[in-house]
Amino acid sequence: MVINSNRVENSACHDEPTTSVARSANATPMPPLEVHKVCLPPPRTTVEKLRHRLSEIFFPDDPLHRFQDQKPLKKLILGLEYFFPLFQWGPDYSFKLLKSDFISGVTIASLAIPQGISYAKLANLPPIIGLYSSFVPPLIYSVLGSSRHLAVGPVSIASLVMGTMLSETVSYTNEPTLYLKLAFTATFFAGVFQASLGFLRLGFIIDFLSKATLIGFMAGAAVIVALQQLKGLLGISHFTGKMQLIPVLSSVFHHENESQRKPKLFWISAAAPLTSVILSTVLMVCLKSKLHGIKTEGIAVGRTFAALRNYQVDGNKEMVAIGLMNMAGSCSSCYVTTGSFSRSAVNYNAGAQTVVSNVIMAAAVLVTLLFLMPLFHYTPNLILAAIIITAVIGLIDYEAAYKLWKVDKLDFMACLCSFLGVLFISVPLGLAIAVGISVFKILLHVTRPNTVALGNIPGTQIYQNLSRYTDAARVPSFLILAVEAPIYFANSTYLQERILRWVREEEEWLASNKRSDIKCVILDMTAVTAIDTSGLDAISEIRKMLEKRSLKLVLANPVGSVMEKLHQSNILETFGLEGLYLTVGEAVADISSSWKAQP
Amino acid sequence: MVINSNRVENSACHDEPTTSVARSANATPMPPLEVHKVCLPPPRTTVEKLRHRLSEIFFPDDPLHRFQDQKPLKKLILGLEYFFPLFQWGPDYSFKLLKSDFISGVTIASLAIPQGISYAKLANLPPIIGLYSSFVPPLIYSVLGSSRHLAVGPVSIASLVMGTMLSETVSYTNEPTLYLKLAFTATFFAGVFQASLGFLRLGFIIDFLSKATLIGFMAGAAVIVALQQLKGLLGISHFTGKMQLIPVLSSVFHHENESQRKPKLFWISAAAPLTSVILSTVLMVCLKSKLHGIKTEGIAVGRTFAALRNYQVDGNKEMVAIGLMNMAGSCSSCYVTTGSFSRSAVNYNAGAQTVVSNVIMAAAVLVTLLFLMPLFHYTPNLILAAIIITAVIGLIDYEAAYKLWKVDKLDFMACLCSFLGVLFISVPLGLAIAVGISVFKILLHVTRPNTVALGNIPGTQIYQNLSRYTDAARVPSFLILAVEAPIYFANSTYLQERILRWVREEEEWLASNKRSDIKCVILDMTAVTAIDTSGLDAISEIRKMLEKRSLKLVLANPVGSVMEKLHQSNILETFGLEGLYLTVGEAVADISSSWKAQP
Repeated sequence: MVINSNRVENSACHDEPTTSVARSANATPMPPLEVHKVCLPPPRTTVEKLRHRLSEIFFPDDPLHRFQDQKPLKKLILGLEYFFPLFQWGPDYSFKLLKSDFISGVTIASLAIPQGISYAKLANLPPIIGLYSSFVPPLIYSVLGSSRHLAVGPVSIASLVMGTMLSETVSYTNEPTLYLKLAFTATFFAGVFQASLGFLRLGFIIDFLSKATLIGFMAGAAVIVALQQLKGLLGISHFTGKMQLIPVLSSVFHHENESQRKPKLFWISAAAPLTSVILSTVLMVCLKSKLHGIKTEGIAVGRTFAALRNYQVDGNKEMVAIGLMNMAGSCSSCYVTTGSFSRSAVNYNAGAQTVVSNVIMAAAVLVTLLFLMPLFHYTPNLILAAIIITAVIGLIDYEAAYKLWKVDKLDFMACLCSFLGVLFISVPLGLAIAVGISVFKILLHVTRPNTVALGNIPGTQIYQNLSRYTDAARVPSFLILAVEAPIYFANSTYLQERILRWVREEEEWLASNKRSDIKCVILDMTAVTAIDTSGLDAISEIRKMLEKRSLKLVLANPVGSVMEKLHQSNILETFGLEGLYLTVGEAVADISSSWKAQP
Repeated sequence: MVINSNRVENSACHDEPTTSVARSANATPMPPLEVHKVCLPPPRTTVEKLRHRLSEIFFPDDPLHRFQDQKPLKKLILGLEYFFPLFQWGPDYSFKLLKSDFISGVTIASLAIPQGISYAKLANLPPIIGLYSSFVPPLIYSVLGSSRHLAVGPVSIASLVMGTMLSETVSYTNEPTLYLKLAFTATFFAGVFQASLGFLRLGFIIDFLSKATLIGFMAGAAVIVALQQLKGLLGISHFTGKMQLIPVLSSVFHHENESQRKPKLFWISAAAPLTSVILSTVLMVCLKSKLHGIKTEGIAVGRTFAALRNYQVDGNKEMVAIGLMNMAGSCSSCYVTTGSFSRSAVNYNAGAQTVVSNVIMAAAVLVTLLFLMPLFHYTPNLILAAIIITAVIGLIDYEAAYKLWKVDKLDFMACLCSFLGVLFISVPLGLAIAVGISVFKILLHVTRPNTVALGNIPGTQIYQNLSRYTDAARVPSFLILAVEAPIYFANSTYLQERILRWVREEEEWLASNKRSDIKCVILDMTAVTAIDTSGLDAISEIRKMLEKRSLKLVLANPVGSVMEKLHQSNILETFGLEGLYLTVGEAVADISSSWKAQP
């Protein structure tokens, strides 16, 4: 006895399972002893459902769980600790912790100073701005940030994006003041945007930039920035401000045509820095495997803090902290900063205990600013260009791109499009195309879902893909199909056609192999994770179409939300008493025994 | 013994299942006797995969299956029959069939003539265009179309869309010739577009207009068209040509202000038609349930032909036929036509056997055009306006909208947005918003997938949602989670956070209930229908994070494509020998017995 749609609401699903009427031990592979009811999820009102849905969308990490069941005073302290994590670790801060933080702070400063200078140059900004940005933001983060190991400051990707975007509108060489003003304004609004996204708990929007997209984008931007540096390397004075490949290359070749009149001078001036670039590139390639290891570890470090040290990092709250840090930074001549993965990994490995390591780093940067800056003033453009080319070439992650190609061709397509889009069209359009491809991939998966025919693995209750498991066998008189996607308006017509085709092909196969006809189609709904009104209509249509062919349609194991909608739309009633089972195995056993019962 | 990633490729999956090392009968609920291997799908090259994917995208209904294994001559005949279905039924056509077709043809003509006139008026076209459109296209369809019961001609939705779109640019009253030319040009290009979509097998793009969107759109357009008809009803001469609610309403009220000077005359002139509209509306509401039945049957008829009469209708080929029909029609003063659901249902019920019923209908329309047209010439605008209002009010399907609200709130939102968008903004923008919401819904489902904790139903191998099945019980030392969506870049971060939260909450619950700790997390991957490179990284990250907490991560039943990618990305190697099981039950049994084995 299976579900009666009139009884669904009232039936307590913890009733004793009822044994089926007629059974014979050899009727089906391992007949189960009982048939279980398919339950509806516990009833919830629309408001409760909406609240649950919204909390899953905006608070998946449940940041307020610490505040539950606490006294008001404790809540206030926890709230203060939440907004200013300083209060959390401050009271227990000791000399021992300071020693660890001092060592790690000095270590990351030794990285942050050269990186700050070259990253600023990536953004077409003077080196000193890079140092400012390694001084003010870490101090602000040390008060607001909740990660204990994150090292903040300028990072390569953000510098690259800022540089490419700004250069498309203003040339630093021609209008340095305007360029600087624009850079600080952009930083301020980037901060406002970050803080708002975090405050509105919309941080997940960032997830739509997939890793594949970023790999392609970084490679494209790196190629352009490296070519832009040819200006410094070759000493070209009239260089394009544009960021596309064609104008940059034409600037270079145009210059070469010009310089054909004085070829010797040109090659001499270019030889030294080119050698340095080539040497550094070779060095980079040799160090690649090691660097790659650190980088991966860096990401893992960032994520595993919560699990490892049992403290939680709230992504959206971190976005607010970083946004505020940028807003404050932009008012003190800093450009866009965020947490650097590579420096954070070094910070963690150097034994940092709290965010104080950022304060130590800031202090070291201050010393540099006060006493060592004059030294940097004389760094020739040539050397800076060489440093930058070396740095950006490291951003071209061809190994990751190759892995994308190997594992997922569509991901590789997204990567390639974002690379080519950035190279030939423009940065925002390239990114938009890549995001579009990623979204298209999701839609394609839903529009053309996989359907597979299942067979029984002899001697078990396991039903698996017939083409994948060679020991799985067809169950006579049954066609068991699994739909591997939610049933939505975008695929409801397709699924109707596809299921009819399965039936036709199966009937043809059975006829040519002289086997008995199908009498029942079982749809395994386990992977149908959602359904909409078009999907419900499709199920109803499929049932009618199969009925006209004297075939019975049975659904197995619909998930909670699907079951709820099947019930609400009264489709279950048309399925009658024997249209819904908890497992494919129970459906097969119960239906075949009912056929035996009625001769 | 479970999968060894080095062995996956070589292991024949039809090996005998191996029995596990140590078992005790009461260790776990009903321990299975054996542990099955998880198989990879049969190896396929990238080209084979691409071909399979493309054939699923463009040829889901496998239209060429009839051509397989046939001789060249037979193939030629089948091809001719495919492109001109006339050759299929023509040779066997008999007087008996003609008799059936004659009766049904005359029956649908009696519907097609008044509908043709009023639908033409819906499109702001003269009635005679509606009759032309009921004459030429059916003749063309009878040669090219493959459905035997489809009655073609003008339909309400298409007329509505055309009317609203054209009126936004040109006024028929002021520039009738331009309006007509535009209508025929639009029809021609609609035909070109349809034929191209069908030819390129892109008909599925239409699926992105969900039923919910169409309900809202039709209601919105119907309200506007009904208001537009107030021009005819109230005899307003200066009426707006715009299609938005505000200008239309302001035209009406502006007129009312004017007519306050001669109120008696206005109400007398308006009373009669208003009464007729009210009466017809009441009549429509009374007939609603019956009409609704016919309409639904109509859709069912269209779809079940293939199943019922064992002939196939290729959707894309039909689009080509209808596109060509419109292209030819536009050259002979016809506007947009397609298959009408209501008339097709009548056609089927009146016993139509072949497409000849369309020819009979065309002949009947021709007789009307030749001899009865002068009668229609004197139909007053008032009556026509009343007929149209009655017709369009029938298009407002509030019952369907209510059902959407009851079953799926987001579908209702899409419906409402398309309704309000059409009413207040514009037709294309309203449709675009509705499609956007539908796509957003798909993305939201992927971005924030459902995760559920599973428990064992005592005495079985069934693992189900703990919160839905109250008789399901937690398995001690295990946390079993099912992820109900593909794992993509858009949800990989969310899933990492959410799974950690599940672990934390479970540990807190166990601690407060003084139960033993979790030792193993099982991810049921049955509903994870796809994975991309970000998803693979997420699985790897989750494994590392759980390892740091001394928890084991095990995957159960990954589907074919996911298994393939897990293998290609070498993630399986990190999972070691006991990281992959075919079912949750086998995982629980095998892992607990291995714990017993090592004291």
